[in-house]
Amino acid sequence: MLKKNDKIYFSPNLSLRERASFETGIKLGALYHILCGIPISSDEKIIKSIEKGIEAAISCQPYVKSVKIELIKDKIVGNKSTPFDYDEITGKIIQAELLINYEDIEVLAKINWIEEMQYPLMYIEKISKIE
Amino acid sequence: MLKKNDKIYFSPNLSLRERASFETGIKLGALYHILCGIPISSDEKIIKSIEKGIEAAISCQPYVKSVKIELIKDKIVGNKSTPFDYDEITGKIIQAELLINYEDIEVLAKINWIEEMQYPLMYIEKISKIE
Amino acid sequence: MLKKNDKIYFSPNLSLRERASFETGIKLGALYHILCGIPISSDEKIIKSIEKGIEAAISCQPYVKSVKIELIKDKIVGNKSTPFDYDEITGKIIQAELLINYEDIEVLAKINWIEEMQYPLMYIEKISKIE
Amino acid sequence: MLKKNDKIYFSPNLSLRERASFETGIKLGALYHILCGIPISSDEKIIKSIEKGIEAAISCQPYVKSVKIELIKDKIVGNKSTPFDYDEITGKIIQAELLINYEDIEVLAKINWIEEMQYPLMYIEKISKIE
Repeated sequence: MLKKNDKIYFSPNLSLRERASFETGIKLGALYHILCGIPISSDEKIIKSIEKGIEAAISCQPYVKSVKIELIKDKIVGNKSTPFDYDEITGKIIQAELLINYEDIEVLAKINWIEEMQYPLMYIEKISKIE
Repeated sequence: MLKKNDKIYFSPNLSLRERASFETGIKLGALYHILCGIPISSDEKIIKSIEKGIEAAISCQPYVKSVKIELIKDKIVGNKSTPFDYDEITGKIIQAELLINYEDIEVLAKINWIEEMQYPLMYIEKISKIE
Repeated sequence: MLKKNDKIYFSPNLSLRERASFETGIKLGALYHILCGIPISSDEKIIKSIEKGIEAAISCQPYVKSVKIELIKDKIVGNKSTPFDYDEITGKIIQAELLINYEDIEVLAKINWIEEMQYPLMYIEKISKIE
Repeated sequence: MLKKNDKIYFSPNLSLRERASFETGIKLGALYHILCGIPISSDEKIIKSIEKGIEAAISCQPYVKSVKIELIKDKIVGNKSTPFDYDEITGKIIQAELLINYEDIEVLAKINWIEEMQYPLMYIEKISKIE
């Protein structure tokens, strides 16, 4: 049997909460860069399919308990009235919510476009020990 | 009203068939590079969701009449028996079929991993005038 | 020796010019979707490094004779005055020029943001037989 | 002046070390998914250009003090002896080292392909307070 001990590679003085925070960041960074540049239109069915597809992909990654992507329909330009009338995913339309479970730590994190920062902020909203 | 005349940018001696071939190539190049690196497992539902999501995205691009992605389940490693037991999409598992319609030209094109070339070949299988 | 005969997969009634147009499209679709979402700042050295890096990558693809990427500095926002003060590559800042050589056909193609179309148009500017 | 206060979005009980770990994960996730699928050959100059290009891009992201990418030349197949003789970047050839500085915390993290895990592991090797 293959040994799958990833812990030997990590600093021994990294806490469980720090490791969980690190794992959360990896998934948000991945999710964001997978989404960027994907063609999209304002059609509800198209949006849903893309959301479900990338959710399914991210759910395969380590320690992901759940992931929810909501692309902001109102900011998506283009309804295919002409061949060139569609959009591409950027940080301005990405909203996502991720639940990570590493050992007994649970982390709830989000991506949201913050208007006053003009930035797609990734942040940890809650981190707690599962009782 | 905005003018949307893309033709003025193209060489005047480009035929409709050549333009249709060019448009076909663009979509396959996009499709391939959007798929590469996306996490995946051998779970049927996960695979289907990813296929549908990227099909929806590519269908937004100009002149796409239909697109069908079939990731090769048997070559996908990983059923999430451990957190690290999953795979990532590469050219080896990508199969796609694309129908492009530019003016009265229709192009059927494919991506398939060609074992003897060790290469994810993109090729035009049929090009014809719509009667 | 491995057989590398890709031609058997293509429609026999595809002309050399059509094949060259198809190959050109593939490279532009790839180039564009590789670039989209890459972090960038308005620093000249950063821009040059990214341009050179993706040029090097695209130059590996079949039939690429040369490729030149010029990201539009004036449209790139962010000089790292704060940690969040940087940009990401989208179609609005991508300019590229590609020379494809398939058998005796040469194709010069470009990507440019067309203001009146609000679209990053990929087009063939010249296609000719090499004498 | 725009307010750039990202802290209000984060859980108040997230420590500086946890935040630094989170930021580290984001960058590694981004770096990895930007690299995946990029065409490459075993040519030293091509490899160096791609490494420098993506290093430049990642260096724009928040709190990145330095980043070093080393793609494993010996695992890259293809020297362009034929048009199809080149490779694409996957986790098997990615090695990277990242230094993050968030407030007075410094994190050294790496990506390496771990043979016995058959996995491109991202891990924190050192986390410490800057004196």
